[in-house]
Amino acid sequence: MDYQELIEEVYQEVQEENLRGKVANYIPELATVDPHQFGIALVDLKGNVYGVGDYQNPFSIQSISKVHTLTMVFPKFDTQLWSRVNVEPSGNPFNSIAQLEYEKGIPRNPFINAGALVITDALCSKFEKPVSQISDFINELAGENCVEINQAVMKSEKNHAARNTALAYFLKSYKNFDNSIDEVLDVYFSHCAIAMNCVDLAKSFSFLANDGYSIFANKEILTESHARRVNAIMLTCGFYDEAGEFAYRVGLPGKSGVGGGVAAVMPHKFSIAVWSPELNEKGNSVKAIRALELLTNKLSFSLF
Amino acid sequence: MDYQELIEEVYQEVQEENLRGKVANYIPELATVDPHQFGIALVDLKGNVYGVGDYQNPFSIQSISKVHTLTMVFPKFDTQLWSRVNVEPSGNPFNSIAQLEYEKGIPRNPFINAGALVITDALCSKFEKPVSQISDFINELAGENCVEINQAVMKSEKNHAARNTALAYFLKSYKNFDNSIDEVLDVYFSHCAIAMNCVDLAKSFSFLANDGYSIFANKEILTESHARRVNAIMLTCGFYDEAGEFAYRVGLPGKSGVGGGVAAVMPHKFSIAVWSPELNEKGNSVKAIRALELLTNKLSFSLF
Amino acid sequence: MDYQELIEEVYQEVQEENLRGKVANYIPELATVDPHQFGIALVDLKGNVYGVGDYQNPFSIQSISKVHTLTMVFPKFDTQLWSRVNVEPSGNPFNSIAQLEYEKGIPRNPFINAGALVITDALCSKFEKPVSQISDFINELAGENCVEINQAVMKSEKNHAARNTALAYFLKSYKNFDNSIDEVLDVYFSHCAIAMNCVDLAKSFSFLANDGYSIFANKEILTESHARRVNAIMLTCGFYDEAGEFAYRVGLPGKSGVGGGVAAVMPHKFSIAVWSPELNEKGNSVKAIRALELLTNKLSFSLF
Amino acid sequence: MDYQELIEEVYQEVQEENLRGKVANYIPELATVDPHQFGIALVDLKGNVYGVGDYQNPFSIQSISKVHTLTMVFPKFDTQLWSRVNVEPSGNPFNSIAQLEYEKGIPRNPFINAGALVITDALCSKFEKPVSQISDFINELAGENCVEINQAVMKSEKNHAARNTALAYFLKSYKNFDNSIDEVLDVYFSHCAIAMNCVDLAKSFSFLANDGYSIFANKEILTESHARRVNAIMLTCGFYDEAGEFAYRVGLPGKSGVGGGVAAVMPHKFSIAVWSPELNEKGNSVKAIRALELLTNKLSFSLF
Repeated sequence: MDYQELIEEVYQEVQEENLRGKVANYIPELATVDPHQFGIALVDLKGNVYGVGDYQNPFSIQSISKVHTLTMVFPKFDTQLWSRVNVEPSGNPFNSIAQLEYEKGIPRNPFINAGALVITDALCSKFEKPVSQISDFINELAGENCVEINQAVMKSEKNHAARNTALAYFLKSYKNFDNSIDEVLDVYFSHCAIAMNCVDLAKSFSFLANDGYSIFANKEILTESHARRVNAIMLTCGFYDEAGEFAYRVGLPGKSGVGGGVAAVMPHKFSIAVWSPELNEKGNSVKAIRALELLTNKLSFSLF
Repeated sequence: MDYQELIEEVYQEVQEENLRGKVANYIPELATVDPHQFGIALVDLKGNVYGVGDYQNPFSIQSISKVHTLTMVFPKFDTQLWSRVNVEPSGNPFNSIAQLEYEKGIPRNPFINAGALVITDALCSKFEKPVSQISDFINELAGENCVEINQAVMKSEKNHAARNTALAYFLKSYKNFDNSIDEVLDVYFSHCAIAMNCVDLAKSFSFLANDGYSIFANKEILTESHARRVNAIMLTCGFYDEAGEFAYRVGLPGKSGVGGGVAAVMPHKFSIAVWSPELNEKGNSVKAIRALELLTNKLSFSLF
Repeated sequence: MDYQELIEEVYQEVQEENLRGKVANYIPELATVDPHQFGIALVDLKGNVYGVGDYQNPFSIQSISKVHTLTMVFPKFDTQLWSRVNVEPSGNPFNSIAQLEYEKGIPRNPFINAGALVITDALCSKFEKPVSQISDFINELAGENCVEINQAVMKSEKNHAARNTALAYFLKSYKNFDNSIDEVLDVYFSHCAIAMNCVDLAKSFSFLANDGYSIFANKEILTESHARRVNAIMLTCGFYDEAGEFAYRVGLPGKSGVGGGVAAVMPHKFSIAVWSPELNEKGNSVKAIRALELLTNKLSFSLF
Repeated sequence: MDYQELIEEVYQEVQEENLRGKVANYIPELATVDPHQFGIALVDLKGNVYGVGDYQNPFSIQSISKVHTLTMVFPKFDTQLWSRVNVEPSGNPFNSIAQLEYEKGIPRNPFINAGALVITDALCSKFEKPVSQISDFINELAGENCVEINQAVMKSEKNHAARNTALAYFLKSYKNFDNSIDEVLDVYFSHCAIAMNCVDLAKSFSFLANDGYSIFANKEILTESHARRVNAIMLTCGFYDEAGEFAYRVGLPGKSGVGGGVAAVMPHKFSIAVWSPELNEKGNSVKAIRALELLTNKLSFSLF
């Protein structure tokens, strides 16, 4: 399989289809990005990097960082983590609070906002300097200093934080929040504001395609069992209320962000990051999802 | 890998754990089964059969038959099927009607009751003698005449049909039901009342581990692409509101039934059926799920 | 207070406002009515009748008949009735099934569809010939033979019965339904298809303004205590999810129907029926509600 | 009617029934009250005061103060107020956030917590020194300096404010919150922590029984029309998700608080305050509600 040829073909076909969506505008800073950008980077398990389009332009990874924070927290708590957050698909928009009420303060999974806030809260309990340690961790996964926190995005998020603040207080009312809400939200907005390019993002997901071992960090990041479980959660919960659709069309564990990025893995084969800012109504990048669908069709293998 | 040794080991360990649940009692006929039965059958892609415990005893496959009916219907409608039923995890109990109201008569997926009724309705539109054709189809998949419709179970279901009848009328009120409600319910209760043993059930799922081709029927049942998609739907939706938990713990596409059976596939390796009547509170067999968890741990591979 | 002058003034002002809505179209037969009709009849406790506009034209009283059936059933069961149906406002559309699921088969109140079906079911348990006995009862309340069941409307309802049938089966699944669903639905559609004019309808409500005693039937229909309670339920639940709005604007106990009628009482003063077919989006007659609002403003008394 | 005799009779009968409930414990400070206290004060429209039991002991009026704040705010905004908060019964617990999400940030009514926060926010936009002006206003209504803000209760509420803070941020995320959240919550907790006795509370409600004119303040507090509307809202929304039950059993406009108080009015007759700390599961005082039910039965008049 010539991966470079493959992703170029995919890139070409997606461009020709000319799919359109809407750039995220819930925070002003995200709305300023050039909507036509589109890049793909694929990293195989030997460390070879393949790229096409705007794959070297940094973009706001947003919720994709929730995979990184989950990875940091998971080994610290092991299965005890699941007393605070569930692993079931949500079936609701990412920022819904109703479900959280029905389920008495236990978020559906670590990737909806409420669950990710719990993960960040847990992270703040175990790491002294959470913001810099998250950056260090992702840099290590990618094998180089690539992480930058976009301060403009971060400030923009803080200025539009009412909903996430409501979620945090609501979690606190169920005693599912341990640290200062302001501090945790700061850390949360910081990691959501991380900017990276497709190559580095794909590298940072490589360990999930490799049974937990990162060839870039040269060490085991998660046990094989933990890595499999993170993949399972990505598959069932990684795309908000479109997770089933993504599993159906693409069939890879992955995670999307409202910046338009998607990172995914084909276990034992490769990790991949695709980015294009225009989103469908569920908040997932139209071009990135289409690209991954074409790619797995062409490869004629997916998980299944 | 010696599969016989593997499933015996798993069988032994599960028996020692002595997990307990509750036999389904929503229809009286199901409640009469001996709760201590437990069997496993694994079928590899060469057609070798491995079995342990009560793997040759027939049991009521119940909702597992929804995979068979979906398989019959899917090629007839292709992606147009998804205008009538979604492919998203439900996050709600299998017989919930509230979600159906919020989503205006489009069931979340083909495996919750409302969705399976839509599938059976679609089946009735395309097959003249649906009950016997479903039996014929499953017999063909298993490579032998193995299907029996348990009339006592079927009558029992019909006598406790109020909820499913409500779902059918509710679907009809949204114009998402084409045929006579009584006829479709008859077909539905018939296929839910199919009794099979673990071997035949595993055989009938073999094509899903084999890119759509059944070595028992000697033909392509689904295209590779369709087979992958059925697996994706099983993974995200096959275990009611415990789908995420199953993906997390087991990591195989599968489908459970309230008779205590679970059928699952490891793509390109094997299909497997596990059965034990006692259920957890979500309606999934406690021993079957535990057995599959141990099995994938021992194999140290799952989908992920 | 000259009631004739009052209602003529109100009639005039409403006509000048030229409020528009939409005639109910969920059953074809209702959609054929002339939408410009508008009538008011007021009946004081001496039996004087005042009328204006189309107050002598019969119209389909629809859900207003639920007050009559509740009145027939209430003394038969007394407070035991409330084990099967609650007396709380619903806050949801009249035909919602989701709430019924959350509250485990106990409808919110006797006036939403699910609750009215329970009442009709209870009625069928106590009356041998329910359809004719309902007609007889209303005739008695009005002091003359005025009730006609519009067969075309009734058939139209039966042909669009999927949603109500779903509600009935759903109630049955919670064991909150005793009689044959088909029979009860027949009775239900029959009483909803009753046609009466404003005068007779106002007369049939007169006992509720008179502590339970009907001057037209010359007897106590309900005890004073029961009559007060029916009024309380009308006030809090009589206008679907617009009950609060009606209490706020009008302040009288009343009941609306999708035929465009509203019947209401001013306790110890009068009963009143107003009718005009065009409905607002909540299913209540725009002119009837406005007329009652103006009327209580002019009288400068309401309940409060 | 000898009101003194009446309330003594009611008092006696309720004491004999020995109804039990649970003192509110969501904030520690409320849980310390002696649960056996029980008092009734009735004030007629000439200003005569009748009392029995612990009617002179101050207690925490809690949510009853929401009637006072609504009264302050209503004339400032008139019907424009209803663009920010609805007047429909909620059908949900007082602190539910799910409904607020479904209805896009417009609270169901001014008496559930979310709605009361909107009212307090609106109040803060119109009054410079809201805390002292609320106290002054209630003192004026009662005709004497009776209001005391219990600082221990207020601090206790602030220390358990997570849920209300979540509601406030959630409202803000829908742009339905204008002022500083911390400031508004301070005002909110202050007015909920007001302590008064039954006499003064009944006096402060007297204007609502008197078409808006307070005989204690010697002035019109609300127009007659506004007063009627506040009564309507109390009747349909004053008792959380038990409003229909209260209307059914008692039939008076009223408002309860988790301190165990209930204030109600019989328009054109009297206002009344009843207090006993033990609550039913819906958060309403068991003895107070029972007392009011007996009282209206004995009077054999209610609204209806």
